[in-house]
Amino acid sequence: MTDITMIRAAAARLEGHARRTPLLNSPFLDEIAGRPVWIKPECLQHTGSFKYRGARAALSALDPGTRNEGVIAFSSGNHAQGIARAAQEFGVPAVIVMPRDAPALKIANTRAMGAEVVLYDRAAGESREEIGETLMRERGLTLVRPYDEPEVIAGQGTTGLEIAEQAREADIAAADVLVCCGGGGFTSGIALALEAEAPGLRARPVEPEGFDDVARSLVSGRIERNAAPAGSLCDAIITPAPGEITFPIMRRLCGPGIVVSDEDALRAMALAFQRLKLVAEPGGAVALAAALFHADEIEAPAVICTISGGNVDRVIFERALATLG
Amino acid sequence: MTDITMIRAAAARLEGHARRTPLLNSPFLDEIAGRPVWIKPECLQHTGSFKYRGARAALSALDPGTRNEGVIAFSSGNHAQGIARAAQEFGVPAVIVMPRDAPALKIANTRAMGAEVVLYDRAAGESREEIGETLMRERGLTLVRPYDEPEVIAGQGTTGLEIAEQAREADIAAADVLVCCGGGGFTSGIALALEAEAPGLRARPVEPEGFDDVARSLVSGRIERNAAPAGSLCDAIITPAPGEITFPIMRRLCGPGIVVSDEDALRAMALAFQRLKLVAEPGGAVALAAALFHADEIEAPAVICTISGGNVDRVIFERALATLG
Repeated sequence: MTDITMIRAAAARLEGHARRTPLLNSPFLDEIAGRPVWIKPECLQHTGSFKYRGARAALSALDPGTRNEGVIAFSSGNHAQGIARAAQEFGVPAVIVMPRDAPALKIANTRAMGAEVVLYDRAAGESREEIGETLMRERGLTLVRPYDEPEVIAGQGTTGLEIAEQAREADIAAADVLVCCGGGGFTSGIALALEAEAPGLRARPVEPEGFDDVARSLVSGRIERNAAPAGSLCDAIITPAPGEITFPIMRRLCGPGIVVSDEDALRAMALAFQRLKLVAEPGGAVALAAALFHADEIEAPAVICTISGGNVDRVIFERALATLG
Repeated sequence: MTDITMIRAAAARLEGHARRTPLLNSPFLDEIAGRPVWIKPECLQHTGSFKYRGARAALSALDPGTRNEGVIAFSSGNHAQGIARAAQEFGVPAVIVMPRDAPALKIANTRAMGAEVVLYDRAAGESREEIGETLMRERGLTLVRPYDEPEVIAGQGTTGLEIAEQAREADIAAADVLVCCGGGGFTSGIALALEAEAPGLRARPVEPEGFDDVARSLVSGRIERNAAPAGSLCDAIITPAPGEITFPIMRRLCGPGIVVSDEDALRAMALAFQRLKLVAEPGGAVALAAALFHADEIEAPAVICTISGGNVDRVIFERALATLG
């Protein structure tokens, strides 16, 4: 199970590979939120999201013989790009299983990073698990899960080590750390790092409306599932339910979840454009949206918001800009 | 006159105030340029441009008695915001003289940073110099020029110290450092820092078509002026001519200028959005445009591009995104 020792080991392996993203702020955002707002922009991470950290951590933890056989992931999004890039860096094969109806640009980007893309037909009822298992058996590939994977959680947790250190540098003694939350790999990793390194900082998951499985699970004390499999602008952080590994960590360490609308996420994207000069994807903007538009759900004197990713297409970004009026 | 000792002293005074912006890259940009491309994103600096460095450096160099009387600047753009913020940090008055027809948002932002905005009527023939001189005499304000000011050049030069250090960390031994260039404060400051700290790195100014006064001045060996006072999308880096102080520095240290079209700047903005998750303004994107679309004018094995600022409105940004097709 992931613990602070694993996170520190992952940080040592990521040294010189993952970017240490800065901690940013803007007086205009502080004004809207009514408290100091700090931003940890993982949109500036390699491949445009924090997922590179977990991917590199997982691949670097494999023994070389296993790694050389290659890795496999099921994803059409940020995890796929993280795995593809980490595999390319190690010079090992990566197979990414994607739905045939995934956006052409995502397929092209994943291929451009050297991965082999295997498409399956969702509509025709093809099972990605069956396709994946066949490939693993035939080729000796190792599966890297997107969040319920101890080394992936450790990699995402390196973000929390940086937040703890940067908060000390900026004299932030007490704050809620708002984390864009899907399956909980990012949130639980950060929560473990903060527990060890920054006792005045507490992680809180932020999710889009209709996909608040983690918030509801934290209330009920057991894993709750989302009603729908998809249907939010915040596609990057939509998962069916919190993970078996991530949920107990979040239950032990996290404050209550915050739920924001797609409209809030778009407005936060526009303010990240205007005040931070950053490109956030909708799912990557939910934590900033919570800080700005749900201030009454926060009691801490300051907030630190992750921006989990910036892989957004032009059309969605223009919808966000339109909220500036 | 500005020298490396002044730049190092400015860096010490900026410590804990200016952001040390990261050095970023993307394999997709390397592919387009045909060589490694590194990005120094000063759009992430306070107030959204490198101008904060020079403003803070200039104000921190004033003796406290003089500074407390207040400062004045003529600018409707990034220099105004830099001065307003630095003055607010020191708790001293700042007066910004702006044309009455400046964009309302720029006036509002400057006021929101605590500055007093004094408007003048360009069309009615009012002289900003006369207005400014009256204010200086009556109130004892100190003028901070945008580029032909030794301490401002020293402040901008701190970017060059960071580039030199980050290039060493990234094992970049030889590169052209492409600098978005208006009056030459940013370019000459960086050039001085590189001369002292990174002999394998050479600064080169990049300008928009029709406003290539520095490129032409470097060719002729004397100060050449632009034909028109305005009329480029790249408004942030339009000045009538290189400065009396900056030009001799650039002439001694810089490689040839590169000139890019507004269309190239827009395409570079779109790629900064897509591949770096950064918001660049047109004038802030000319160096990246040169790296990507004028590769045949570059002989160095690698390039480091400044993004000088990100203060762009929604309408212009959407024009840039439209180039993605």
